[in-house]
Amino acid sequence: MESPVLSYLRKVHAELAELRDGTPYSVGPSSADLNPADFGIALATVDGHVYEVGTTRKQFSLQSISKPLSYGFAIAELGMDAVDAHVDVEPSGDPFNEISSNPETGRPANAMINAGAIAVASLIKGSGGRTPIQRIEHTYSEFAARRLRSDGREYRAERARSDRNHGLAYLLSAAGVVEGDPTRALETYLRQCAVQVDCRDLAMIAATLASGGTNPVTGTEVLPYEAVERVLSVMMTSGMYDDAGDWATSVGLPAKSGVGGGIIAVLPGQVGLAVYSPPLDKHGNSVRGAAACRRISSDLQMHFVRSARQGRSAIRSIRTIDQEPSNIRRTEAAADVLQEQSERALVLELAGDLFFAGTETVVRELTSRAPEIDVVVIDVRDVDEVGDAGIRMINAVFQDFRENGREILLVDPDDVLGGVDTRGITVFDSRDRAIAECEHRLLERYGGPEAMPRAVPVVDSPVLAPLDRADAEALASHMNPRHYDDGDVIRRVGQRFGGVFFILSGTISIVASHTDGTRFRLRTLGAGMTFGELALGEDDRQETTAKAEGPVEVMVLTADEIEALEERDPALAVQLWRALSRDAYMRVDRLSRANAARIRD
Amino acid sequence: MESPVLSYLRKVHAELAELRDGTPYSVGPSSADLNPADFGIALATVDGHVYEVGTTRKQFSLQSISKPLSYGFAIAELGMDAVDAHVDVEPSGDPFNEISSNPETGRPANAMINAGAIAVASLIKGSGGRTPIQRIEHTYSEFAARRLRSDGREYRAERARSDRNHGLAYLLSAAGVVEGDPTRALETYLRQCAVQVDCRDLAMIAATLASGGTNPVTGTEVLPYEAVERVLSVMMTSGMYDDAGDWATSVGLPAKSGVGGGIIAVLPGQVGLAVYSPPLDKHGNSVRGAAACRRISSDLQMHFVRSARQGRSAIRSIRTIDQEPSNIRRTEAAADVLQEQSERALVLELAGDLFFAGTETVVRELTSRAPEIDVVVIDVRDVDEVGDAGIRMINAVFQDFRENGREILLVDPDDVLGGVDTRGITVFDSRDRAIAECEHRLLERYGGPEAMPRAVPVVDSPVLAPLDRADAEALASHMNPRHYDDGDVIRRVGQRFGGVFFILSGTISIVASHTDGTRFRLRTLGAGMTFGELALGEDDRQETTAKAEGPVEVMVLTADEIEALEERDPALAVQLWRALSRDAYMRVDRLSRANAARIRD
Repeated sequence: MESPVLSYLRKVHAELAELRDGTPYSVGPSSADLNPADFGIALATVDGHVYEVGTTRKQFSLQSISKPLSYGFAIAELGMDAVDAHVDVEPSGDPFNEISSNPETGRPANAMINAGAIAVASLIKGSGGRTPIQRIEHTYSEFAARRLRSDGREYRAERARSDRNHGLAYLLSAAGVVEGDPTRALETYLRQCAVQVDCRDLAMIAATLASGGTNPVTGTEVLPYEAVERVLSVMMTSGMYDDAGDWATSVGLPAKSGVGGGIIAVLPGQVGLAVYSPPLDKHGNSVRGAAACRRISSDLQMHFVRSARQGRSAIRSIRTIDQEPSNIRRTEAAADVLQEQSERALVLELAGDLFFAGTETVVRELTSRAPEIDVVVIDVRDVDEVGDAGIRMINAVFQDFRENGREILLVDPDDVLGGVDTRGITVFDSRDRAIAECEHRLLERYGGPEAMPRAVPVVDSPVLAPLDRADAEALASHMNPRHYDDGDVIRRVGQRFGGVFFILSGTISIVASHTDGTRFRLRTLGAGMTFGELALGEDDRQETTAKAEGPVEVMVLTADEIEALEERDPALAVQLWRALSRDAYMRVDRLSRANAARIRD
Repeated sequence: MESPVLSYLRKVHAELAELRDGTPYSVGPSSADLNPADFGIALATVDGHVYEVGTTRKQFSLQSISKPLSYGFAIAELGMDAVDAHVDVEPSGDPFNEISSNPETGRPANAMINAGAIAVASLIKGSGGRTPIQRIEHTYSEFAARRLRSDGREYRAERARSDRNHGLAYLLSAAGVVEGDPTRALETYLRQCAVQVDCRDLAMIAATLASGGTNPVTGTEVLPYEAVERVLSVMMTSGMYDDAGDWATSVGLPAKSGVGGGIIAVLPGQVGLAVYSPPLDKHGNSVRGAAACRRISSDLQMHFVRSARQGRSAIRSIRTIDQEPSNIRRTEAAADVLQEQSERALVLELAGDLFFAGTETVVRELTSRAPEIDVVVIDVRDVDEVGDAGIRMINAVFQDFRENGREILLVDPDDVLGGVDTRGITVFDSRDRAIAECEHRLLERYGGPEAMPRAVPVVDSPVLAPLDRADAEALASHMNPRHYDDGDVIRRVGQRFGGVFFILSGTISIVASHTDGTRFRLRTLGAGMTFGELALGEDDRQETTAKAEGPVEVMVLTADEIEALEERDPALAVQLWRALSRDAYMRVDRLSRANAARIRD
C-alpha cells in the first residue's frame, strides 16, 4: 500500500496546485526554463526517510535559503560572539533588500536580510587551499548529503544587476560590519545564492537542521547544536519576508524562503519540510510554498507550541521491595525482615526523557521519600534522552543520598546516565541482580544471623518441606556432596538430566541463550534452592547452564539414584516427585503473576 | 533533603539579587510600599507543584501581564477571526505605549502593546449580570486558582494619568478598532492592569498556559487550546518590550512582563515560570526578572528549539508471532503451522507519543510489510498521547488493511486510540488474549484439521506424553468426566487441592487477584491442557479461579484418587508426579525466559 504520509502530501499537492497567483523571479539564464506550474513537496524525517511529491528533482537556485546555512557556518567557524558583533538578531519587519541596521551599532538587523547575509559572507575566509565559496559549497553539500555547486552563469546574471547590493556592501564596509573587500563579500554572497538544489535537497537540508546539525543520512555533524539553535531562532522570527509575526503565529515553525521558489521549514527534532514552486507573492515568498507550509504545519500539528515536549513524569513505576522481590528464595526469617522493612527499599523504573520536567518528578519523589529510604534501585534502561538539567538534578540527589548513608543501586548496562557522578554507586546490568543486592543490603541492616543463612542443610531445603523428617533424611542419604569453585560450570546447556542439585551454600548463576546465541543471566540461586531438575522439562536436556559464583557446596540426588529409588522405594519416590511438582507449581504461579504484572504495567 | 530544584532556584536567586540596576515604576498608592530589594522566583509544574524562593507572596499589580490573559479570553469568547479583525499579530518593535497600527487597516500591531490591549478590552462584554471587568477578574482567578481582584485605588491612580491612553482609545475608536465607548474600554483595560497578584499566582497563571489552558490544580479549562496556542505565539514574538528578537533567540520562551515588576515565561507542556522584582530596565522589563528567565531557560534547556519533542519512533518492539507465542499449548501440527507462517503475523508494541514523527515510523513499517502480513497485533497500552495527525495516519493504514483482508487485533483496554476508526477490528484487554487470537486466525488460514483440534483425548494430553500408552490409559481409568457451561466457576480461589483437571475441549480462563483485590486474567487454557494442579504449590489451596468460557469438557483425576493411587500403585503414581513435574518445569523455563525477555526489552 502507499504510505499515508505520501497520500497526504499528494492530496495537499493536488489542492494547492490550483493556486495560480504570483510571479516567478526571472533573473538569470535558468529563468527561461522556469515553469510556473512546477510544484514539489518533500518531507524528510530525522532518520533520513524522504517523502516526495511533484517536481522534487528539478534544479533551481538556493537564493536566500543560503542565508541561514552560511549564518550557521559562520557561527560554527568563529563562535557566536564574533558573529553577533557583525549582525543582530532582531526581526526587521522590512523587505529583504532593505538597508535595515541599528542606528547605534550599524549592525544589520539580522542575517536573513541581504545586509546581514553579506556581512556574514564576509566573515567566511578561505582555508586549506579552498576559497570561501568552495568552503560554503562543501558545507551546503554536507547539509544535503549530495555534491552541490554554485552555477557560474546564474551568478554572473545576478551580479550584473546587483548595484543595490553593491552599494549595500560598501555601506556595510564603511560601518565596519563587512570585513575585508566589500566586493569579495558580495561575490561570495551572490555565488552562495546561485548554488543549485532541488526540492529533495532542501528537505534534506531542513532535516539536518531538524536533527540538531547532523545529517540524518551520512551522520556528518555539519553544524554544532548551538549554531543550529541560533539559526532556527532567527528563522522563526525573521525567516519569511515581511510577515514574520503572522508566520510565527500561524505556522509556528522556523522557516526560510528564497526567490528561487524554494522554502524550507524545520520542526526541531522531527522533520525537515521543503517546497518548490516558482511563483512568488509580493513579499517574495513562494505562494504555494507558503500555503503548503501553513497547511502541513496545521494538519501535522507542527506549531512550536503544540510540538513542545510534554512534561511527563519519567517514573514508569515505583514499588517497595516486597512488591518486586528478587528470584532468590529467602528463608522465612529473611522473608519476614524484607516484609517488615519493605518501605525502606524502593524500586524505581524510569522511562522517557530526563530533561527538566521528567527529572523533576523523579527528584521530587526521591527527596520527599528520602527520610524513609535506606536503599533504592533505579532502573534507567528505558530512559531515552538525558539533558544537562536532568544530570545536575540527579547528581544533587545522589550526593545527598551518599552523604546520608542511603544506598543507590543503578540498573544501567548501556550507561544512559553517563554524565552522572556515580561514585559509590553500584551499577548493575540487570534489574534482577540489583534487586537481589537491594534485598541483601536490607537484610544486612535489619536481619539477624537466621535471616542471612550461610548454609542450609539439605533436610531443611524448602523444596523438601512437604516431606516428614524421616523421609527427608532417607532422601538425603541417597545424595552425594560436591564442591565447586568460582566460575565452575556445574551443568551445561544440552547435557542430559543429571539429577537434582540442592545448594547448601554459595551462589549459582543460571545462564540461558537467546535465539541469536547471545547469553544472559536467567536467575541467581542461593542456599536452600535446587537446580538441574528443569532438565526434565524438555527431552531430559539442560536448557540452561549452571555456574558457580564463588565457592559452592551442593548435594546431588543423581538421575541414577532417582531411577533406583523409583524401583526400590516407589513410595519415597512419589514423595520426592510430589515435592518437586509442588515446588515447580509455586514457581509457575509466581512467574506467571510477575509476567502478568509486567505486561499490565 | 531539600529539593534540588529549590536549591537551584535559591542559587539563581542569590546570584541575581546582586543586580542593582533599574528603577521601579511608581504610580499608584502601592508604590510607596515598593521595595527595590524584593525579588521572588516561582516555578510551577504542569502537575501543579510550585517551587518558591524569595518574595513570592507580596501583592503587586498585574499590569501588562494582563494583556495576554485578556487576549486569550477574547479569543475564547469571540473566536479567532473576530479578534483578528481588531488586532494584528506582528511584532511592533516599538515601546509598549506606542501607537503602532497598520496604515491600511488601522489595526494595532499586536495585543501586547497598549493600543492592542485596549482594543481587546473593548471586545469583552458584560454577561449574566457581570460587568466586563468582573468577568475578566473571574477568568484571571481561574488562571491563578485563587480569587484575584482589581484594586480600585491603583486603578484610579493610573486613570488619573492616562491622558495618552485616553487619546489612544479615541483614535482607535475613530479607526473602528475599539468597539463601543472608548472610555469604557480604557477603564476596563486599566482595571485589568490593577488586578493584584503575587509571584506564586503568576507561576500558576503561567502553568495554566503551559498546560494548554487547563489549570493544573483545579482542572478548570480556562482557555481552549487554540486560544493558548495563539497567545503563546504572540508572547514569543512580542511579549517582551522592545527586544523581541533577542528574547526569542536567547531565551526562546513565550513571555510577558509588566511594569509592576512581574514576568511570566511559559514552557509549553512543562513549566510556568514567574519572577517578581520591581526595578525595571529602560524598556520596562524587570531587570532581575529578565535575567532570571534568561538564566533559567538556558540552565534548564527550555529554549523552544531544545525543548521540541524528539521524533522518536513509537515502535518499542516488533516481532513475528513465533517470537512471542501465546500461553496456549498447541498440538505439534499447529506449532508447525505457526512456525512456518510466522512471518505473516506480527506483534507490534507501541510506546510514547503518536504525533506525526512517532506515528510515521509505525505507518512506514506497516505499509512496507503489508504484502507479507495477514494478521497484526498492535499493543498500544504504553502509548502516552495521540495527535490528530497520528489518528489520520493510523486510520489510513487500518482502512487499507481492512480492504485487503489483513486483520488487526488491538490491545487497548484504556481506549488510547479512542479517535481511531476501529470498525472490524477486535479490541482486547490483554496482549496474551490478542496473541492467542492471532495464532488462532493464522491456524484458520493455514492449518488443517489436525492443527485445530476440537477435542484432545486425555491419553493424548501433552502432560502425559512421557507415559507409555498403557500407563496413560491406566491413569485415565481413574478419572471422572465433567461438563461445564459458559461462566461456570470450576475451581475457586482458596479451595483445597481438588485434583488435576485435563481439558478435553473448550476454553478455561484462569483469573487471579492483585494484592488490592482487583482481578485479572492470568492465562487462557484450551484442549489438551491441565489445571488445578497448581493448588499443590501453596498450602494445597487454589491461588486462582478457573472459569469456563463456553462449554467445556474435562476429565478429573481427583485428589482422593491420587491419594488412593499412591497407596495402591506407587509406581504409576511416580509416573504421574514425574510427568506433572516435567510439565511444570517446562512452564517454569518458558515463563522465566519470557520474564527475562520482557525485563530486557
